[in-house]
Amino acid sequence: MTAPRFLIVADGDFSPMTSKTANSVIRYLPERTVGVLDRRQAGRTVQDVLGFGGTIPVVGTMREGLALGPTAVLIGIAPSGGRMPAEWRSWLAEALDHGCDLWSGLHTFLADDPLLAEKARAAGRRIFDLRRPPADLPIASGLAKTVEPLVVLAVGTDCNVGKMTAQLELTRGLNARGVRTRFVATGQTGIMIEGWGIAVDAVVADFIAGAAERLVLEGSKDADVVLVEGQGSINHPGYSGVTLGLLHGSCPDALLLCHQSSREYIGDYREAAWLRIPPLSTYIRLYEAIGSAVHPTRVIGISLNTYDLSEAEARRACETAARETGLPATDPVRFGAAPLVDAVVVARARHAEERRTA
Amino acid sequence: MTAPRFLIVADGDFSPMTSKTANSVIRYLPERTVGVLDRRQAGRTVQDVLGFGGTIPVVGTMREGLALGPTAVLIGIAPSGGRMPAEWRSWLAEALDHGCDLWSGLHTFLADDPLLAEKARAAGRRIFDLRRPPADLPIASGLAKTVEPLVVLAVGTDCNVGKMTAQLELTRGLNARGVRTRFVATGQTGIMIEGWGIAVDAVVADFIAGAAERLVLEGSKDADVVLVEGQGSINHPGYSGVTLGLLHGSCPDALLLCHQSSREYIGDYREAAWLRIPPLSTYIRLYEAIGSAVHPTRVIGISLNTYDLSEAEARRACETAARETGLPATDPVRFGAAPLVDAVVVARARHAEERRTA
Repeated sequence: MTAPRFLIVADGDFSPMTSKTANSVIRYLPERTVGVLDRRQAGRTVQDVLGFGGTIPVVGTMREGLALGPTAVLIGIAPSGGRMPAEWRSWLAEALDHGCDLWSGLHTFLADDPLLAEKARAAGRRIFDLRRPPADLPIASGLAKTVEPLVVLAVGTDCNVGKMTAQLELTRGLNARGVRTRFVATGQTGIMIEGWGIAVDAVVADFIAGAAERLVLEGSKDADVVLVEGQGSINHPGYSGVTLGLLHGSCPDALLLCHQSSREYIGDYREAAWLRIPPLSTYIRLYEAIGSAVHPTRVIGISLNTYDLSEAEARRACETAARETGLPATDPVRFGAAPLVDAVVVARARHAEERRTA
Repeated sequence: MTAPRFLIVADGDFSPMTSKTANSVIRYLPERTVGVLDRRQAGRTVQDVLGFGGTIPVVGTMREGLALGPTAVLIGIAPSGGRMPAEWRSWLAEALDHGCDLWSGLHTFLADDPLLAEKARAAGRRIFDLRRPPADLPIASGLAKTVEPLVVLAVGTDCNVGKMTAQLELTRGLNARGVRTRFVATGQTGIMIEGWGIAVDAVVADFIAGAAERLVLEGSKDADVVLVEGQGSINHPGYSGVTLGLLHGSCPDALLLCHQSSREYIGDYREAAWLRIPPLSTYIRLYEAIGSAVHPTRVIGISLNTYDLSEAEARRACETAARETGLPATDPVRFGAAPLVDAVVVARARHAEERRTA
């Protein structure tokens, strides 16, 4: 099997903040991306829209997209609730007829659509529903406490603040330092990039922690450090259950707190704007208290997403966060992950020492 | 449709603490229970085994059970993970052949079993999989904050400590005082007793809070007080995600903290005994901090389960809990729910006053 070449569907929603899956696939797998389909941005390049991604074109029709030679069509936006806009169905059917596979992280499984399933069968193509959970998940039993590597979970002040990106940048940085580091994907986009994982938000609720536990056990093989992709936020009205199940199931020794500096309200509720994001110190207290109720853990660094700030504002945001929390703080995409890499190296040494003397 | 008459299957596990569903159905619907099937306890009465339930017989074969004239066979135990022991399948097939419906709260849906589904079709019987979630659940949007009634959620120090029982006793007590009170079922047993609800532990993880929100909105019609059945515990390694989703989705104005007085370790992990139950005051701090991160809430009373203590020990346990927390504490089954009824009445008056002046 050769690596797929993706045409990414992000129709009506391709932008620096909204098309999270599309943007991350482009950031981490640019060589596998042939184009993006968004009627609103057609004619521009990905660089024009995102500020990175180079000359990858944005097209306005499936026909133009298929002409770019993809081997797979990838759903690149995650609508609230995860359900697919009805009109995309005919595009996906067209792509299957044309000989493409489908990759999707939607809650609604494409393979359960009779038309798409039949077309895939007829064309001999595959539909990868990356959010479909394994059938045999366990109830978590606390086994993740026992693994050798240092386990670091990214936690956030909200959804979509850069938790996955922080862990991917940190994975690069640690491996470059010779620390054998494994990224553990817990969401659709991470799975697309990494090639394995479980979308913990798509499992039956009783098995959230069990899925996290299984991932940590699997990720711990031949690793010094395991970096677990985070989900949601501990005070997110819709998704906090996923966040806590992941926190308790993965038994992290350390936490990385992620925040988008300009955000004031919990994101999906911005229109109503009823839930203000409290100070980082409040999050640290909450995450450490509730996490340590199952396995002792502490926040060791702050990862900021400052994409919409000026350079000077971004530097100030990092300094303010570091001062407020007494922890290293950086925007790993903008300023590099070094301060966080240092923090993990220190935490890992302490963890190894504690295990030796325990 | 006439009310069903249940034969309850609790094979190998019928006892005061393990067969939670069986015991609760017997406690709250004794007039609908014709017998219990448990080979280990066959020949005894339910009263012999549980200390309540009168002369309802325990039988050792499905044939004897069917001779008691049930119209439905109800699965009365919830094995860890919710999956059905393989050998029960032939019993259930026999029951369908005999003209019974099936009621089940297992994670594995009986109606998805080809043999049982076919037998049900052939016999014109129905299979009620009470844990099957609705297909159209929303992501929670915080709407539960807006309802008129006082919303009270039961929270616990562990699974299976008496959260549902506390709320059912409180429902009786409040209605007897003329306070229009609605019990909202969030688990299989509550649904069996109440006739409606959603098993929030069985929904896809992203929709836990959305399910809770929908239940509170539905339960709020024509009610002064809504009592929401709790699930799991905020520090339960396997189920805490469900607990937090329910807490944030239901936006309770008040919490009732439930505990089994003799329990020292989080229950499903008793063999390993690695997670000691912290003091009640720790739970109060955790639940109030994490709950209030979305909607202001406080613990207003303590409900104890003292079934395995002497009368004197039980009274001491209530006094100790009251002293430690400064809150009313009782075992509502053993000593009556009056102190908790009073606490809810006071909280409701304050809540109504706050809404008037807001």
